[in-house]
Parts: sequence; structure tokens; C-alpha cells
Amino acid sequence: MFSLQRFTNFNRSLVNGVKFSTQTFQKYKQSCTDLTKLPKAQARAFINSLEAVISDGDGVLWLNDRAIPGSPEAFNALTSRGKKTFICTNNSTRTRMSLMEKACGMGFKVTVDNIISSSHALAQYLKDMGFDKPVYVIGREGLIKELAAVGIKYLEIGSDDMKGTVKDMMNTIDLNDNVGAVVVGFDEYFSFPKLTKACSYLMKPDCLLLATNTDERYPAGEMILPATGCFVRAIEACAERPAKVMGKPNKEFCAALLKNGLIKPQTTLMVGDRGNTDVLFGYNCGFYTLFVGSGTNSLQDIEKWRHSTDQELHKQVPDFYLPKLGDLMKILND
Amino acid sequence: MFSLQRFTNFNRSLVNGVKFSTQTFQKYKQSCTDLTKLPKAQARAFINSLEAVISDGDGVLWLNDRAIPGSPEAFNALTSRGKKTFICTNNSTRTRMSLMEKACGMGFKVTVDNIISSSHALAQYLKDMGFDKPVYVIGREGLIKELAAVGIKYLEIGSDDMKGTVKDMMNTIDLNDNVGAVVVGFDEYFSFPKLTKACSYLMKPDCLLLATNTDERYPAGEMILPATGCFVRAIEACAERPAKVMGKPNKEFCAALLKNGLIKPQTTLMVGDRGNTDVLFGYNCGFYTLFVGSGTNSLQDIEKWRHSTDQELHKQVPDFYLPKLGDLMKILND
Repeated sequence: MFSLQRFTNFNRSLVNGVKFSTQTFQKYKQSCTDLTKLPKAQARAFINSLEAVISDGDGVLWLNDRAIPGSPEAFNALTSRGKKTFICTNNSTRTRMSLMEKACGMGFKVTVDNIISSSHALAQYLKDMGFDKPVYVIGREGLIKELAAVGIKYLEIGSDDMKGTVKDMMNTIDLNDNVGAVVVGFDEYFSFPKLTKACSYLMKPDCLLLATNTDERYPAGEMILPATGCFVRAIEACAERPAKVMGKPNKEFCAALLKNGLIKPQTTLMVGDRGNTDVLFGYNCGFYTLFVGSGTNSLQDIEKWRHSTDQELHKQVPDFYLPKLGDLMKILND
Repeated sequence: MFSLQRFTNFNRSLVNGVKFSTQTFQKYKQSCTDLTKLPKAQARAFINSLEAVISDGDGVLWLNDRAIPGSPEAFNALTSRGKKTFICTNNSTRTRMSLMEKACGMGFKVTVDNIISSSHALAQYLKDMGFDKPVYVIGREGLIKELAAVGIKYLEIGSDDMKGTVKDMMNTIDLNDNVGAVVVGFDEYFSFPKLTKACSYLMKPDCLLLATNTDERYPAGEMILPATGCFVRAIEACAERPAKVMGKPNKEFCAALLKNGLIKPQTTLMVGDRGNTDVLFGYNCGFYTLFVGSGTNSLQDIEKWRHSTDQELHKQVPDFYLPKLGDLMKILND
């Protein structure tokens, strides 16, 4: 699945004649240490000791359709220093190919193998289990293309609006007896008939319920845009069982990379701008975590989590901090 | 609000010359005792000692559009023996008036004052707090009629389907700056644009979020019909805060009756066919509870809850049991 021959082996770094492995940096776990405030040699030793860097997209590498200044340089510098670099996103509306094109267009040097997306992970999961039934999809093109790419059949997607009365709807719905899974991603055509169909399929105990992610919302100026997590919550309530979630913070998201030995937890860094997806994902996988201040959460949020008695919030405190990914260049440059 | 002049005062019952008050029956709390298996005099003494009986509708009094045989006779017999009798429902799609007409049509002798509905309770709640802003309603006519009846203004309801892209939708949405509450009931036109509007209004911290109930689903033959709870879960996820829920099992549901002194917890019986709405509601209010086997849950469910280590499930074990409400006549008749 990944062709990463160009990647080097485990890095050891030399600072003042002393060998450093990533073990050396265990003491920084969940300390939210500002990398720019560490002695430069030590910060550089930490970066050098890493084999792989997984970065979130929006809020770290770009904001909507624009690269965050300095992010392409920093990301590409990591790649050119032999790190296995990945862009990982919960966005289920684009294929890996389309995400790669977006990233390349902004100056990130990546191939499709450098992209990890929740739709791709979900399709791989079904493929790996030998799933051979049609699936009912709440989602968009990105998701069905990833399903198609691994040979999974799916029912038609698109608008499915409520017409007439509830009785009219029930008389119109024709459930496909073979459906073996309900798959949920972002879908702006989410509606009562779609919810009814999803939950009706899920009456069968052996019908799977999978979701690309549980992101709840996207800020959008004066508005809030509901995200996949809202649909998942509604379906879970009606179906009376939880979804298997493939996106961050579920470690299943990079199960394939770990299984293939392409990355090792103790030499991998997860970079992100959100506590409950990115940092928690890194924590759940046993990666080092680097939080950047260029996206959704702030250092104030992290202070709150650090002092919280809620264990789940405490997990979102990262190991390291940078105002923005581009600041890495201050460490990498001579 | 309730004209109950005809109701008598606290009942005391004489069995074999011994006075019984409801206190005598404390020992039966959460015992799920079959009333038909108690000595008849004792079962009758319990019924006599009650001042008020609140009964769920569907599953206890009727199934869809048909009275459950014996239920009208039993309900009317309680009324004619001077009990304050109420029909209480989480159904938010009908007004109290329309529920009264349905009940009367099946032979239940009730006036509108005998009906407690979640839409009515919600409207009363807003009225009692002097609420004077327009509300954004996800719901149907029953809900807006109850709002209108207490002078609450509301935005248009009905279909609001997704058209075009997310950007198109965002350009079309015109949020009303004055909206002070989002109110959620059953709505088969629930859609992505409605979810977006609800959550966008709820960005304002002082905008209230109220729900008629959190019922998750209705069985409907080969299908499952999603219920209000699904919409509530989706909105709560996106708005990142919980709704204030007026329906069962929330004791707010009969706050007005308790506040006015029309009913007293220790002399009130709640009759229902569901653990997580009816019985839990009775438990939360401190009422006696009677579970009937003519609806959703079964004695097997109750056995499961009785042996559960989950405190919340344990609360759903009722005090008394009858196969169906009509069996009460075996106790009441000489």
C-alpha cells in the first residue's frame, strides 16, 4: 500500500558528542514544551531522532485553500531529511488523490502514499476483512471512490429529501436485503429519510456501523457547519449501538502503517492543532505529539486541560508546542 | 391551568378495620410486585390510598389508533373513584386538544386538563420564565400551536431541504438576530440546513436549547422510525452543550402540577410500559410506579435491570406490575 523505499532507518542524533534516541525525550511527555525555547541542539536532536512525522492538514499545513506561511518549507525539510512524512485528515469528502493534488498545489512535496484519510482507512478496513456486501453510504464522492477503489459495492448517494407524510415515506422506502454495513461520512444531504434507512438497515445485528470520524462542527464565520459527528450521534441514538470510528483520535486510523512496520510509535511524531482529534490520536497511538497554535485550539485550552480532573481532557495535553509548523525551520536551519 | 375541583382529598383506605395510607406500601418500592397476586384487599387498599394516577398513552391506554381492551374501563374507573387522572405523553406532534380528542374517541373520559404533553410543558416553561423572543423550531404543528397558545413567537416550520452546495446554502441562510431559543420536537423534515441553523443560533451562549423529549426511535414493522432524541443528539454534538429536556423521564415534565400542589409525590402513581421514560420518570418524581406488559418493555427487561450493576438501569425497576391496565378491574370490582 505504501512505497517508502526512500525512507531511511531509525535515526540517532549526536549532540555534543552524546547519542540521543527518542527515549531521551520521554521526560517531555505531556509537558507542552515550546520547542523554540529548548536549547537549539536539543530541539534539533529530538527532530533528528524521529523516523516519521504525521501531520494534520487544516490548521497545521493550510487554512482552507491557502498554505500557512512556512508550513510547506518545514514539511518538505522533514521529508528531505529522510523522515517518513504523512498528511493525515479526517476529511471524508475527498479521495487521497484529490488531497494530494490540493497539497501539491500549495507546495507540499507529496505522493498519494503520503496521504492518510479517514475514507481511505475505512475502505481499507472493509477490504482487509474480506467484506463483500453492498454498503449504505451517508457521504459524498470522496468516500464512495475510496470504496470503489477496493471493490466495495455501495448504494446510490446524493439528495434524499423528505416528501409528503411519514407514511408516504415508509411506503416508498425499499430496503436492500443484502446491505451489510452503514458507512457514515460528511454529507450535506443528511435528512430524515437517510436517517430512517440507516437505522432500518442497522436493525440487523450483523449489519456493521462504520464512521469516517466524529468531528462535531466546523466554524464558518457567523455560522456553525455541522460535521460528520452529528450524523453519527443521531444514527447511534436510533440504532442503539456505537459506530466503529476510523478517523482521529481512533488509533485504527493508522493501523495499516503500524501493522506493516512502516512506522513505530516510539519514533513517530504527530503534529496537530486540535486536542480531541490530533493530540489525542497521537496519545492513543503512543506517538510523540506536537501542538501548533495556527488552528482551532489555543495554549489557553491546553492550560485548561492540563489542570482538568477529567482524564480524557488531560490526554489532550501535548508533549511539544510551536506557534506554527514553519517555526521548525529555526531549529532545522544552521 | 388545571381545573380539578371535582377531585377529592387524600384517600385513606380501610382493610379489615386497619387504616392504610400510601406509606404502608413503601415496602413494595422497586419490587415489581404483580398486583393481581397480592391479597385483593391489600391491592385495593393501595389503589384507594392514591390521590392521582398519571398514565402513559401508547402501550398502556392504546396501541397506535386502538384502545387496548380494558384500558378505557380501568382509566375511567379510577377517575370515577375520585382520583386525579392524567394521560401524559412525550409525543410533541399533537396539541393537548388533539390528544384529548384521540383519547375521547377511544372511550377515555378526559378533558384537556387531564392531558400532559411535552410540547405543552415546554411552552409553559418558556411562558413561566417570561420568555419574549422568537424561537427557532425544529418540530411540527402540535409544538407551534402550544407555543402560540402562550404567546411565544416562532420562525416558520416545514420543509427546508438542502439545495446546491454548502457554500450556496451558507449564502442563502439569513439568521434572525433576535432568536432566543432553539426548540426541538419530532420533525420528519429534519435536514442539514435545519441542523446548521439550529447550531448557528446556539453559538450565542444565551440562546436556550430545549427539547420536548429524547425518545430515540419508534418501531415501525420492517423499519425503525427515528425520533426526537436523534435530532437532539445531533444538535447537542454540534452546539457542544446539552439540551434542557421537558419530556419523560425529566421531572420538569410535571413541575407545574407539583408546584401547584395538584399532585403529591407520595400519593401519585405513574403507569407506563417503558423503563427509560415512564418508570424512570416516576422514580425521578418520587411517585409509585406501575409497569404494564402491554407495550414496549417486558418482564424479561425488568429482570435484566434488576440484576444490573448500572444504577441508572436499576432505577427502571417498577414498584408494581400488571399484564395490562385492564387487569385493574379485577382488583377494583367486587
